[in-house]
Amino acid sequence: MVNVDISNIWCSVSLPDLLTLEPSVSGAHAALMDAGGASFLSWLDDDSADLLARLSETADRVRDQAAYLVVVGDGSAVLGARALLELLLGRDHALRGGVRVLFAGSDLSTHAWKRLDALLEQNDFYVHAVGRDGMSLQSAAALRALRWTLERRYGMERAKEHLIVTTDPSRGALRQLSVQEGCTAFNLPRTLAGHESVLAPGALLCLMTAGVDVKAILAGAAGTRKELEIRSFENPAWLYAAARIILAKRGKRAEYLCAAEPDAWTLCRWWQDLFGSRACWKGKGLLPVAAELPGDLQQLHGLLSDGKLPLMQTFLRFAPPPQRQQVSMDLHDFDNLNCLNGYTLDFLQEQTIAGALQAGQDGGVPMVTVDCGRLEEAVLGELMYFFELSSSLCAGMLKRNLYAEEPPARFAEAASQLLGRLPPEKEG
Amino acid sequence: MVNVDISNIWCSVSLPDLLTLEPSVSGAHAALMDAGGASFLSWLDDDSADLLARLSETADRVRDQAAYLVVVGDGSAVLGARALLELLLGRDHALRGGVRVLFAGSDLSTHAWKRLDALLEQNDFYVHAVGRDGMSLQSAAALRALRWTLERRYGMERAKEHLIVTTDPSRGALRQLSVQEGCTAFNLPRTLAGHESVLAPGALLCLMTAGVDVKAILAGAAGTRKELEIRSFENPAWLYAAARIILAKRGKRAEYLCAAEPDAWTLCRWWQDLFGSRACWKGKGLLPVAAELPGDLQQLHGLLSDGKLPLMQTFLRFAPPPQRQQVSMDLHDFDNLNCLNGYTLDFLQEQTIAGALQAGQDGGVPMVTVDCGRLEEAVLGELMYFFELSSSLCAGMLKRNLYAEEPPARFAEAASQLLGRLPPEKEG
Repeated sequence: MVNVDISNIWCSVSLPDLLTLEPSVSGAHAALMDAGGASFLSWLDDDSADLLARLSETADRVRDQAAYLVVVGDGSAVLGARALLELLLGRDHALRGGVRVLFAGSDLSTHAWKRLDALLEQNDFYVHAVGRDGMSLQSAAALRALRWTLERRYGMERAKEHLIVTTDPSRGALRQLSVQEGCTAFNLPRTLAGHESVLAPGALLCLMTAGVDVKAILAGAAGTRKELEIRSFENPAWLYAAARIILAKRGKRAEYLCAAEPDAWTLCRWWQDLFGSRACWKGKGLLPVAAELPGDLQQLHGLLSDGKLPLMQTFLRFAPPPQRQQVSMDLHDFDNLNCLNGYTLDFLQEQTIAGALQAGQDGGVPMVTVDCGRLEEAVLGELMYFFELSSSLCAGMLKRNLYAEEPPARFAEAASQLLGRLPPEKEG
Repeated sequence: MVNVDISNIWCSVSLPDLLTLEPSVSGAHAALMDAGGASFLSWLDDDSADLLARLSETADRVRDQAAYLVVVGDGSAVLGARALLELLLGRDHALRGGVRVLFAGSDLSTHAWKRLDALLEQNDFYVHAVGRDGMSLQSAAALRALRWTLERRYGMERAKEHLIVTTDPSRGALRQLSVQEGCTAFNLPRTLAGHESVLAPGALLCLMTAGVDVKAILAGAAGTRKELEIRSFENPAWLYAAARIILAKRGKRAEYLCAAEPDAWTLCRWWQDLFGSRACWKGKGLLPVAAELPGDLQQLHGLLSDGKLPLMQTFLRFAPPPQRQQVSMDLHDFDNLNCLNGYTLDFLQEQTIAGALQAGQDGGVPMVTVDCGRLEEAVLGELMYFFELSSSLCAGMLKRNLYAEEPPARFAEAASQLLGRLPPEKEG
């Protein structure tokens, strides 16, 4: 299971500090579970086998018939799907063949649309619209454009076959669209957990289409779900959430998340988005900042080693794959590194991370390490579940009720607000 | 030219504040120019035509003979090349055919290496090693592995033909390697500006190989170079640098950079890296944080609208392409957006950004907008030059002498430091 090591924060946090927060974490955890489905996986309890079979059939159909799957949606579930694709298949996964998953609907950029449109012109594609009952303006605009492209390409009737919708079981624009068109549709659970989670049908279909073993991800998450039910500081999600809250109260303003894997960059962005929207609120909580190691190592040294910036830092570590890579001999030893001959790459990486940890410790920067184990499906299911739970616990501790909030920019309100600001005549 | 609008910061900064800083900016600017080559382009003054012709020949050779160019290096120049590739060709540019540029040498990840190695197995490739006189450990390790792969594939003799080196004109491991192997080599100017700039041969060769019009980038940068020579607050780089320093002194701790283009994400990362390593030092200066609009719009609203977090925000705006995209009619109007029929996407985007600016203003968050003009080569040359100059001005104002510093983790010291921590027996 994900292992959270907070031994480096005792310079700033004491055991009594932690224990004082116990009622607050406990209350947040209870409220989350009472709100229903906050286990992020409860939607799976009922009809998971049937649902997974339908998702898998649909993924097979896309793979048989198309080169691209265009996912339309915004929010953390869609970003999380991208993060998992890059972690599991590599950031250059587009070069590897198979169906390529493209993303749209999180911007209003004309450039991005023209580029997507040019790619689609030469290949068969499916559109997968993902969203809760309220769609954002940018997703709605992208979906309109993509449906028009589908109809022009495949005709009115066949266009419907190339459209997949994953949304609220009964209400909202996407549900209405799916009923009207009679297209393939999946339900997103109505809880917070359901629509924002990467462990729900919207994100899972993208991953399945790209050939990722989704069952392994869900199995990892389900195992962690049980482990993270513990209501004490033996629960790593409790530890992480409480440490963040205490450090924020002690005057820390930002948290750096560093992963030493280049393919983990989008995961760090997803984390920045998740903790930024849930756990940084009304001036309280830490500002999340994604960093990359050792690319940012020099920067980190500069930022951390004097301890003057109000930062905390979290390291995300993955175990290396079973087959190691050694530094090789060079006849002329042009770089003087023959002394490292025979050492493995991951061993050098461990040393580098140890150096970064030491720099932080010297500077009095509180540091948390999250050890994830192997970079594989089950572990990533655990990790996503861990971050989803701990960000929700932070939200609860900051007295933010995520369930009571309406979706932030429901398309209709957004559009009417927009129209209020539009000039009398249209542009075009 | 890049237009910097600071009209939104007058809530926190006054004109006398700005004028008080004049000697400091002016001193930083003079020191930068005295240090030589800090115009970031002075290396071009001498033999640019000849050098560009040689770069172009080499790029043609790679295009003729290979499917991949693997760029080995770390630091902002390499990240900047990636940023420009994604901005000009799209983040999914790997799907577009032509030579694909891959990046290595900024990590010690075994996963990343295995994935790269698997891609190279099926295709012809060139290796381009970029670095100053001191190489980082991660670049050196990657280059050893890649040279071994080249020799296994092409044999000792032909492997040399597939290696390109861009480095210091006379010293360092890479120069020694290029002399020993007799491979194609280019000079990186020895000034700060030269090796870290995206406007230098290392990054330019990657861009040329991918088919980017490098001459247009350089022409844009050269134009801006003249404009940004003005020694007064009419110089947008002065304005931006001074505003950052004043706001940091006033207690702001972080700066969000937001671009409304999804393809600008790596540019924001490059900016985070550049300003993080130069202009955030010893607890002084703003912590740079890359964000994305409107993906992060909700988050920004949460962070900004109450004005309680000590943030400033910078918006990066590009003009839309000449050919606009309109929101289309939908017969059933499933999303109630027919009211927007005929409005262009970029117009809606403008409104969204205006909304974000308004939210910031309401919350008393100081905001800067950087209007770049069209998303095209010349403009990006201007923008890169602008950020390189303004980050260096900030460094100077924080009394950081970038020229006096040694490269942070020269491979030999890094290796010996590492060896000091290694256990007696090797792993493997």
